[in-house]
Amino acid sequence: MAKTDPVLAEGLKQIQRDIDSAFDALLPVPADPRARLYEAMRYATIGGGKRLRPLLLSATAAMYGVDRAAAVRAGAAIEAVHVSSLIHDDLPCMDDDALRHGKPTLHLAYDEAMAVLAGDALLTFAFEVLSDPATITDPFTRIDLVQALSGASGAAGMVGGQMMDIAAETASFDLPTVTRLQQLKTGALLGAAVEMGAILGKVPPEGRAHLRGYARDIGLAFQIADDLLDHEGDEAAAGKALRKDAEAGKETFVSLLGPERAREQAKFLVEQAVNHLANHGAEADLLRALARYIIERDH
Amino acid sequence: MAKTDPVLAEGLKQIQRDIDSAFDALLPVPADPRARLYEAMRYATIGGGKRLRPLLLSATAAMYGVDRAAAVRAGAAIEAVHVSSLIHDDLPCMDDDALRHGKPTLHLAYDEAMAVLAGDALLTFAFEVLSDPATITDPFTRIDLVQALSGASGAAGMVGGQMMDIAAETASFDLPTVTRLQQLKTGALLGAAVEMGAILGKVPPEGRAHLRGYARDIGLAFQIADDLLDHEGDEAAAGKALRKDAEAGKETFVSLLGPERAREQAKFLVEQAVNHLANHGAEADLLRALARYIIERDH
Repeated sequence: MAKTDPVLAEGLKQIQRDIDSAFDALLPVPADPRARLYEAMRYATIGGGKRLRPLLLSATAAMYGVDRAAAVRAGAAIEAVHVSSLIHDDLPCMDDDALRHGKPTLHLAYDEAMAVLAGDALLTFAFEVLSDPATITDPFTRIDLVQALSGASGAAGMVGGQMMDIAAETASFDLPTVTRLQQLKTGALLGAAVEMGAILGKVPPEGRAHLRGYARDIGLAFQIADDLLDHEGDEAAAGKALRKDAEAGKETFVSLLGPERAREQAKFLVEQAVNHLANHGAEADLLRALARYIIERDH
Repeated sequence: MAKTDPVLAEGLKQIQRDIDSAFDALLPVPADPRARLYEAMRYATIGGGKRLRPLLLSATAAMYGVDRAAAVRAGAAIEAVHVSSLIHDDLPCMDDDALRHGKPTLHLAYDEAMAVLAGDALLTFAFEVLSDPATITDPFTRIDLVQALSGASGAAGMVGGQMMDIAAETASFDLPTVTRLQQLKTGALLGAAVEMGAILGKVPPEGRAHLRGYARDIGLAFQIADDLLDHEGDEAAAGKALRKDAEAGKETFVSLLGPERAREQAKFLVEQAVNHLANHGAEADLLRALARYIIERDH
């Protein structure tokens, strides 16, 4: 399994520790009636999740010699957007999920109102962190980070994908439409992670084509792997309910391609993603290992 | 009634028209399965609301000769945050309201999932607009706008106030705590409107003290007026349910001070707000009229 790749294992361990520390430092519980809100935000952000987006961001940034502290803070921002979407996705009026990262979802651990507010607060927190000079002094870099993350998170990105996902329950989407759905729902934020790493690294837009190609390919591979896990994975390892897409009658890569062709397609995309990094040396090893991990993970 | 003040009447009419146009232009409905999300965002943003925050922002910006188009786009951003909070506040798990601006709340006109997503999308939209060079080319100004709006919107601002508002149902808050609650829940965003106008006007932070004083005073006056309307107003004029605070057993300025002292305090605050503008000439007339309107409005 790819997780035993030593570069990746170390990268995952480091980013998980750093992102936990960042949320711990950035979300101190105030001694006033807002305490419960901050506790809910900490419950949802500290100690859970693979931190794939912060890892993608920091691994890209590290290729260009970016200061680790800045990459970690930007990583906490993108993770906050991701966690916010999970909290709201888990609500009874959305997916109505009881389990997330192996513990009760926020609306069950607290209540629905707190889940709505904590999600809103974390979404806002992302832009508070990115616009803060403590993250990075250069205002040009900060505004580019805000633009990349907001563009990927809203109706033109992740939330638009969540909308398509709801529409998928009553419509029968073809392969191009499912691909578009996933590019928005998951791909946009994974792409933003790489883009934000490049922005921190001051890579000019015209020098980011290979990174965007990498991100696009792993984004789709990630979703195919997710569909395969949903189809045949283990709920205990996943820490969440599975087999939901089939129950909801949604078309997925697996339902449209069959598990064998889906698996082949994911492998092909990962090799293509790695090929985008051909002009990089050892500094891209973590991104390469990450691409392979994406289709070999069990959760 | 202050609305007949010709400067204010014209200012309100203009900003309502301009903000409607801005949302109309910025939220075109795409020809794909995301259409319903954009329709919901348009339902919530176009054709409703007094647009007080955009008016505060643009009236402040106009004092410093800011291009109207930039002020309107920044105004649409702050209004989007406000509308997002109303959509989520109206949800069954929050205030469970059926009426907003005289029409069905978003979760009733659409459904709860769409209300969650449209709120998230509008919150994100605010930062998409502010970070867009089309709003204003200067990146220093854009990042300052993002910092001002995000700081006022999250757990340290508006969402923190919403949390305190929920806590107020089970705790018995004293006057300083109710004041703090309102400064966060409503005051932070009204303050951000004035601050963003000053940022657009390139007023240095040390030159904004009088504007911050003005904003703080009208913020509190606004909330006292809201409590008075909730206590004795007309539901038809308000376009929403009233008398909810008393039913929920929440302390308000009216319950703590009584209606007479509350009314006097609001008047005092408005006069104090106007005094902060003493060094301005006719260019501040709209802000002065707006301060007086805040306690004389019937909705």
